[in-house]
Amino acid sequence: MLLYIYLIAITAEAMSGALAAGRRNMDIFGVCVIAFITALGGGTIRDILLGHFPVSWTQHPEYIYLTVSAGLLTVLLARFMHHLHRLFLLLDAMGLVAFTIIGCNVALELEYHTAIVVMAGMITGICGGVLRDILCQRVPVVFRHELYASVSMLVALLYLLLDHFGISQDINLAASFAAGIALRVCAIYWHLSLPTFSYSPQQWK
Amino acid sequence: MLLYIYLIAITAEAMSGALAAGRRNMDIFGVCVIAFITALGGGTIRDILLGHFPVSWTQHPEYIYLTVSAGLLTVLLARFMHHLHRLFLLLDAMGLVAFTIIGCNVALELEYHTAIVVMAGMITGICGGVLRDILCQRVPVVFRHELYASVSMLVALLYLLLDHFGISQDINLAASFAAGIALRVCAIYWHLSLPTFSYSPQQWK
Amino acid sequence: MLLYIYLIAITAEAMSGALAAGRRNMDIFGVCVIAFITALGGGTIRDILLGHFPVSWTQHPEYIYLTVSAGLLTVLLARFMHHLHRLFLLLDAMGLVAFTIIGCNVALELEYHTAIVVMAGMITGICGGVLRDILCQRVPVVFRHELYASVSMLVALLYLLLDHFGISQDINLAASFAAGIALRVCAIYWHLSLPTFSYSPQQWK
Repeated sequence: MLLYIYLIAITAEAMSGALAAGRRNMDIFGVCVIAFITALGGGTIRDILLGHFPVSWTQHPEYIYLTVSAGLLTVLLARFMHHLHRLFLLLDAMGLVAFTIIGCNVALELEYHTAIVVMAGMITGICGGVLRDILCQRVPVVFRHELYASVSMLVALLYLLLDHFGISQDINLAASFAAGIALRVCAIYWHLSLPTFSYSPQQWK
Repeated sequence: MLLYIYLIAITAEAMSGALAAGRRNMDIFGVCVIAFITALGGGTIRDILLGHFPVSWTQHPEYIYLTVSAGLLTVLLARFMHHLHRLFLLLDAMGLVAFTIIGCNVALELEYHTAIVVMAGMITGICGGVLRDILCQRVPVVFRHELYASVSMLVALLYLLLDHFGISQDINLAASFAAGIALRVCAIYWHLSLPTFSYSPQQWK
Repeated sequence: MLLYIYLIAITAEAMSGALAAGRRNMDIFGVCVIAFITALGGGTIRDILLGHFPVSWTQHPEYIYLTVSAGLLTVLLARFMHHLHRLFLLLDAMGLVAFTIIGCNVALELEYHTAIVVMAGMITGICGGVLRDILCQRVPVVFRHELYASVSMLVALLYLLLDHFGISQDINLAASFAAGIALRVCAIYWHLSLPTFSYSPQQWK
């Protein structure tokens, strides 16, 4: 079940990467690379930071084909993309939750401290988008916009809490997905965001 | 043989890094760092992604001295660099092919899946330039210009194909270099490039 | 002793990261992330390059809490930050020396070649700031301004030299700190900097 959601999620993330590449007029190869990195970059950074080798996608070449295909498909369908705007945001929210839970599971298996498990979840959830924005020369969206990373953190905490109290994996997944998607949808709908810190130094270099 | 070409290649890559640093008015230290990263960054990313420790240059400090020296030499010779433009493009093409083949060999030894071997070759070939462009705040050239990454991919595929059919290593190297350099030279001469994807969203954030 | 200086150093680095995030109007979450990465990113890159797993902060969650708290505190105290300008530069210089020596020690324990030990020290000392600048979309300050990386390199060389001649660890630390901080303070006071390389190509793409 989590696997199917994961496959949908990396497809949606790959498509968001392809659109970002298109805004920078990249060529077809650049589109594929950004699609791949957006979809699988978060998990890669997590695996490297946790010393979890081999990195997961090196054992699953089919993920490479899937994300590259999704990127190319996006080029063909770009004209119709804005009609799919809402579906896309929903898939993206599902992906955020799925990535977060998968990241937590990897760190749990390696028996890291709880704080590191939460960070592994968040890194998996958001780092793909951060890499996409760095490669497309934007200040990472995740540091500036509606609740996104916070949703990832809350999902990770909820998932670990339910796990700690011995709730079965199925119910835990259902509850984490429901809470995460609801929170993200509310954040988009009401433009919820964290307070911003603006600093314009005069005497500070 | 491949080693000598590799040494020429990292020298040429280091010089291209130094010139990029000069365009951003970096200091001598920055020039050395960018030269080093441009030359050896691709192999470093490959080693980390494949879990291939220790990272190769940490066992060969002489590569560090070579790339840093090449960076400093570039500063002294910058005035004459544009006379060497064509030689440089040729060395760069040789480097791209050499890096790609070396990257494939590393992944082959670790017994990765063929798709990962091709990616290891491409990562070794192009990631140094991508890191250079990120550190110098440009959208990576490799995602926008003439065939470059595609040459790396085709060289990797050709090399693996010939290897698969049992062609001897020497003939395989000669064929891969000939094909790769010819393709790259044609791409530069006729400005061959992949189609570009331009996306300007109205309703899409 | 080195541990206490280290804790002060990561706090100061986290605060400099938070201020950089504030200049880009990031939200509270972004501030925490940049604070964390600025403080612990250099050590993380060192650990990954040296194949030194598990990465150090994954075994010390308290470093995460400390850097995130320092980032949040900076938001509250931003108004008064410019009064602390000089104190800050001193803490930053102490941090640079402490990070450099700690980085050298990690590479020494893993029995790397001397050149790699020096690089490990420099990477620990300066890469946090480089990551901060990349994420905040600036050309890394360390490649352009007053002696900073050079101080790190000289401290690493001095530390290894004294270590080689069998000087006791305590005296070695004192001497390295004195030399490093003095050099950095002089560099700031007299605006000492390395020569810059400016390159404006006409015929070069």
